[in-house]
Amino acid sequence: MSRKLTAIAAAISIFGSGQLLAAPKNIIYMIGDGMGPAYTTAYRYYKDDKNTKTVEPTVFDSILVGMAHTYPDDNTVVTDSAAGATALSTAIKSYNGAIAVDTNKKPLKTMLQMAKEQGKTTALVATSQINHATPASFAAHNESRRNYNEIADDYVDVKVNGKLPVDLMLGGGTKYFIRDDRNLISEFKRSGYQYVDHLSALNTIEAIPAIGLFAEKGMPYAIDKDPERLTQMTEKALSLLDKDSNKKGFFVMIEGSQIDWCGHANDIACAMREMDDFAKSISLAKSYVDQNPDTLLVITADHSTGGLTLGADGDYRWERDVVANVKASVKHITKVLKDSKNVKKDWESLTGLKFSSDIEKALKAAKSEGDKALFSSINKFINEASFTGWTTGGHTAIDVQVFAHGEGKEHFIGSQNNTQIAEKLISFIEK
Amino acid sequence: MSRKLTAIAAAISIFGSGQLLAAPKNIIYMIGDGMGPAYTTAYRYYKDDKNTKTVEPTVFDSILVGMAHTYPDDNTVVTDSAAGATALSTAIKSYNGAIAVDTNKKPLKTMLQMAKEQGKTTALVATSQINHATPASFAAHNESRRNYNEIADDYVDVKVNGKLPVDLMLGGGTKYFIRDDRNLISEFKRSGYQYVDHLSALNTIEAIPAIGLFAEKGMPYAIDKDPERLTQMTEKALSLLDKDSNKKGFFVMIEGSQIDWCGHANDIACAMREMDDFAKSISLAKSYVDQNPDTLLVITADHSTGGLTLGADGDYRWERDVVANVKASVKHITKVLKDSKNVKKDWESLTGLKFSSDIEKALKAAKSEGDKALFSSINKFINEASFTGWTTGGHTAIDVQVFAHGEGKEHFIGSQNNTQIAEKLISFIEK
Repeated sequence: MSRKLTAIAAAISIFGSGQLLAAPKNIIYMIGDGMGPAYTTAYRYYKDDKNTKTVEPTVFDSILVGMAHTYPDDNTVVTDSAAGATALSTAIKSYNGAIAVDTNKKPLKTMLQMAKEQGKTTALVATSQINHATPASFAAHNESRRNYNEIADDYVDVKVNGKLPVDLMLGGGTKYFIRDDRNLISEFKRSGYQYVDHLSALNTIEAIPAIGLFAEKGMPYAIDKDPERLTQMTEKALSLLDKDSNKKGFFVMIEGSQIDWCGHANDIACAMREMDDFAKSISLAKSYVDQNPDTLLVITADHSTGGLTLGADGDYRWERDVVANVKASVKHITKVLKDSKNVKKDWESLTGLKFSSDIEKALKAAKSEGDKALFSSINKFINEASFTGWTTGGHTAIDVQVFAHGEGKEHFIGSQNNTQIAEKLISFIEK
Repeated sequence: MSRKLTAIAAAISIFGSGQLLAAPKNIIYMIGDGMGPAYTTAYRYYKDDKNTKTVEPTVFDSILVGMAHTYPDDNTVVTDSAAGATALSTAIKSYNGAIAVDTNKKPLKTMLQMAKEQGKTTALVATSQINHATPASFAAHNESRRNYNEIADDYVDVKVNGKLPVDLMLGGGTKYFIRDDRNLISEFKRSGYQYVDHLSALNTIEAIPAIGLFAEKGMPYAIDKDPERLTQMTEKALSLLDKDSNKKGFFVMIEGSQIDWCGHANDIACAMREMDDFAKSISLAKSYVDQNPDTLLVITADHSTGGLTLGADGDYRWERDVVANVKASVKHITKVLKDSKNVKKDWESLTGLKFSSDIEKALKAAKSEGDKALFSSINKFINEASFTGWTTGGHTAIDVQVFAHGEGKEHFIGSQNNTQIAEKLISFIEK
């Protein structure tokens, strides 16, 4: 190719408009809740094979294309997951707490609803309750993310062309779907949905439509149980969507929900195990795209959580081995140590850290102050030993990364507003 | 263009090899020392025009193409500026502290030296002393960044094809260049270099070769004096390089050195003013590329500093107005308040914050403990009022961004090792 032609081609691919490329038939949209750039960086070092001189790139590294601005429409600069997911699902920024409604609390049509209108098969997969902020913002409308029952109701009540909006749902949330005042599961069943309520029964789902709810609210942390539950659900969802063979294709949103929750807890080992489950899910989706070139995979985060930094307090190091040796969430370790008959043994087996006399003293003092103090004390020792820094129990405003693979990925190269990610996907769906 | 052709062109531009594109004649390589992704994000909100609904994109947003991994070759994960610059100038990772030497302390040829070998004109611009870690790693070799005199000597002694390696140097560092044991400036003059020692005399430089040293060590912070000194030096350097009309072109490395220093100090207003000076310098370089399409502009950071986060301690906000109202570095404010006759007046005029009785009490107590405590106390109030978080006085390992504009920019799209940035630039220089 001549130098001039290559330059033209390059210019088109970097700055080209959606008009040049046909729309991909299938869209896999993955959201790492709270997954700021420190998380993908940490994950690379966490997974590093220490027997080699270089640090191996991750699946994230293989498909990075850009970054996104996450600010909500309320002058705070720092978004929550509801406003973040609303921007990512509707292309319109709203206030923190908004579930697919604008700043006047008026419902906004979501890309999942548009996909359904276009005759595509639709699916939501999450490790949180399936009516939590991120998945909710794709199929429900509510002025507040806290209205969990109303949001779950929307999954039955807000029909698209007379049909239920989401053909496949996998996640947690029985508490909100099977209630005294209303049993949504019965309603789903009457509409022909297969229902399973145990992750071990995931493979008994035979076809779409189906709903699988595997926990009362969110599923347990990956570090505490079923370390690959998102990977399993992703595999199942993609296989069902593939088998569904809807000629119009499918739209699926898959959320690594609890990266954020571990971030809120400032629990680095918990976060890295969630990242691992999310990364493995991405690898499956990436393979699906390689085998089905009419599919576009786009991945981003809604925001970063916790103010995670690798290195803290002046030290130029981050100890991934310390993180890898932790065997449970700090939440679980707190529960165990609280009633432990052998604190030394439980401490060492769960944290991988030596039970020094300083630690013994600190834990004892913390225990007498209550669960919260004990939790903080355990967390502090793991963060200090690994040189992990945190600045908040909430979110931060740092730009998040954008990853893309498959047909149309060129359109996501560079820096963009989170609403622009949605705009591009919507332009594909509406085509 | 057909869909297939577009797809092919896109594939080439994203994953293509350097062989397809001719090498750009001129290279402008800019390094924001310590400029992790939180800094470019913060800068966008800092510069936001509050009269408009959207947050305006910055010059960084207009040319973002990827990210880079910064780890050094010493298992710490967290790099310093010397190892970072060595990777960025030689394509080889080394240990923290290394100035263009490998882990065996053997000198590594730098891309500036290669450019000089190829007959290009070479230049270094920085707001630090010009023999500080980052610029040093382009033209000197030393086992330790601390050996400032030896590094300055290298700028005269380490010749390329019998010639001095750097044709134009602008920055600080008279202390190291005019010494009792050796006067390097006299030696530069004997080799035909014009020398200026005041920023106000910058425009008296008429031609290359030249050296301008505008401070004993680093230049003052942008927030305290000459807020656009890097912009001015960049403008002068590009105009001199352009006038030089060397048919082989030029290589210039321009460093926003003190973003890092403000980060070490956890001084957010100081950091934003350094970002502003760096951003304005980038805009000039970008315009130069637009007018000279045979020029490639590549920008990155060596690492992030301070563990900066926007939002802290659970609050979902970042107050850029607080940051914008601060009128001096915390270092300078400390100096003023220490001997102030009217602390209230000086506090309010320099920080823009109300002088509450809490602040009065805290400053009084801190003052009695000494300068360091007073510095920390002032810093704490500004960081708390702006909801700015920090985790360290050192560096962190988060991936940094890569920006590119002009001929060959396609090669920098995606995730890459910092050494790969250098590899690509070297392949252009050596072509």
